[in-house]
Amino acid sequence: MNNPIIIAIDAMGGDNSPDKVIEGISLHSKLSQDVFYKIFGNKNIIFPFIKKHKIPEERYNIFHTDEIVHGEDSPLSAAKRGKKTSLWLAVESLKKNDADAIVSAGNTGALFLISKLNLKMIENIDKPALSALWPSKQGMNVVLDLGANIECSSKNLLDFSIMGSALLKALFEDIDAKVALLNIGSEEIKGNAMIKDTYKLLIENKYSLFEFKGYIEGNHIMDGDVNVIVADGFTGNIALKTAEGTSNFIIAELKKALSSNITGKFSSLLNFNNLKKFKNKLDPRLYNGAILLGLDKPVIKSHGSTDAIGFANSLKVCEKTIRGNLINRIKENIG
Amino acid sequence: MNNPIIIAIDAMGGDNSPDKVIEGISLHSKLSQDVFYKIFGNKNIIFPFIKKHKIPEERYNIFHTDEIVHGEDSPLSAAKRGKKTSLWLAVESLKKNDADAIVSAGNTGALFLISKLNLKMIENIDKPALSALWPSKQGMNVVLDLGANIECSSKNLLDFSIMGSALLKALFEDIDAKVALLNIGSEEIKGNAMIKDTYKLLIENKYSLFEFKGYIEGNHIMDGDVNVIVADGFTGNIALKTAEGTSNFIIAELKKALSSNITGKFSSLLNFNNLKKFKNKLDPRLYNGAILLGLDKPVIKSHGSTDAIGFANSLKVCEKTIRGNLINRIKENIG
Repeated sequence: MNNPIIIAIDAMGGDNSPDKVIEGISLHSKLSQDVFYKIFGNKNIIFPFIKKHKIPEERYNIFHTDEIVHGEDSPLSAAKRGKKTSLWLAVESLKKNDADAIVSAGNTGALFLISKLNLKMIENIDKPALSALWPSKQGMNVVLDLGANIECSSKNLLDFSIMGSALLKALFEDIDAKVALLNIGSEEIKGNAMIKDTYKLLIENKYSLFEFKGYIEGNHIMDGDVNVIVADGFTGNIALKTAEGTSNFIIAELKKALSSNITGKFSSLLNFNNLKKFKNKLDPRLYNGAILLGLDKPVIKSHGSTDAIGFANSLKVCEKTIRGNLINRIKENIG
Repeated sequence: MNNPIIIAIDAMGGDNSPDKVIEGISLHSKLSQDVFYKIFGNKNIIFPFIKKHKIPEERYNIFHTDEIVHGEDSPLSAAKRGKKTSLWLAVESLKKNDADAIVSAGNTGALFLISKLNLKMIENIDKPALSALWPSKQGMNVVLDLGANIECSSKNLLDFSIMGSALLKALFEDIDAKVALLNIGSEEIKGNAMIKDTYKLLIENKYSLFEFKGYIEGNHIMDGDVNVIVADGFTGNIALKTAEGTSNFIIAELKKALSSNITGKFSSLLNFNNLKKFKNKLDPRLYNGAILLGLDKPVIKSHGSTDAIGFANSLKVCEKTIRGNLINRIKENIG
């Protein structure tokens, strides 16, 4: 049996909430026995879904509030909206040590700003970074920063290397962390001054948490030779979004091709199981859950448009960051 | 009948050259009657392939030289290698007005440096940019800069908008050019200072060549709502390479899924025609040919690892840039 952990959840954010949030909790609660859910939001709206999705009483508490952060709020206006929104209260429960981590499917900017306002930065880290999981031929990569910091220093990128490796180890204990810097050429001569400085920092020192493997180009991110990909937030976001767009484009073209005539439809039916395996491997819900790293508690952002399965996967990622000692791993390795 | 045009070709660069180059010329020559090919390289090696691929005598000349630029040469060492390499001589023929454009499948950096050394920049353009075609749901995008300039000013990005639109119009006369800046958010507030300045420049003026549509995120590049995507060379290269890697990853996973058992193999066979259509639409050989814009003659880089069909497509792109008055379109629109 595991030590019981407590996850704070903003139930009111994202599309089709709180239905999918509560169903996601229900799915997760069946797989993970030693997790307690603190659910923040409007209890009159939430409770019927709790009944519908049959979450046992002893697994959750609802912390009622009428106020919510809207998707279209700017981070600043969301923070100014006050300390009674479900998002603020959920984050505040971490600050008060009433919960171990937070998951929200709501407004990303607001989640991050309110987290930064309430939680402490880990000592010696200057900037938090947004990280996510990204599939590769060999398994799974951690990629960061995905947009929290448009401009970064070499010190930031060094911190990101450590935090990303700590996350990888927290999620996949047995995997060795191999860090690469996202750049436009694999030779030492390419890239801007900041990237070259980071390269020097990483190559001249030894880090017990990870092995530094040099530069990587965008076309090799998914090869699996390295598993922690580090970039400034602008570059990382461009890469992530472009991969998403390319993937959507190809899947749409494939669907069109496979359903364009009777033979296509018939043989796709025969092929259903194989295509399903393919679809499952690429299912974005599997990788759902961006993690804000650098604060002294795990802050997890579920995709706003995901469904209950995706939300349950965010809870799984969240649980793993806690059980895998993410925060301590970072603290022990930050210089 | 079209006016005859002259294309200079470095026959010695890229994998499996000059075989694929000569076969590519042969393929192109059958579709385009009014093109003359000036082929630079070792005639003893080239001539047997000319015989093999049956190019009529009146369609080409071979300009003999023993010296070649190697793939592993740095651009500088390639330029220093002297003025007798097939690449240098091919570019020099443009300078002497003996040819209208050049195509090479060889060393990219060397092609660009030797082109910059020999050819004039178009007046009022500070930096040349590397552009390429990128498929979208609606047709085809022009994307630039793909790596010629790591750091750019707003003036550069404005120039890229004009040059990219001129290229689109030269290739697809009937299509309206719609420019967007690649950024990490679609709202005006995101992005770095340089991008915001470019946004202002583009929104405050009217350009007859294109319509400015604001920012675009990586996940919308292939939607087709805009067709000229502008970025600094670092960002553009990251996007292009990441799209390439994602595409390779998905196609490899799909192949694995479709051939993983007997049913899969059988139904994929039934589905052969549909899958072939799909493959054709994504065939990178169709989009083969990066164009260096900003010099006073078109400089086309064919992918080093492409085959004869890919090389023939580069020749087609090259021919279109000449017949579509690419250079004049740029000159007329640069402020």
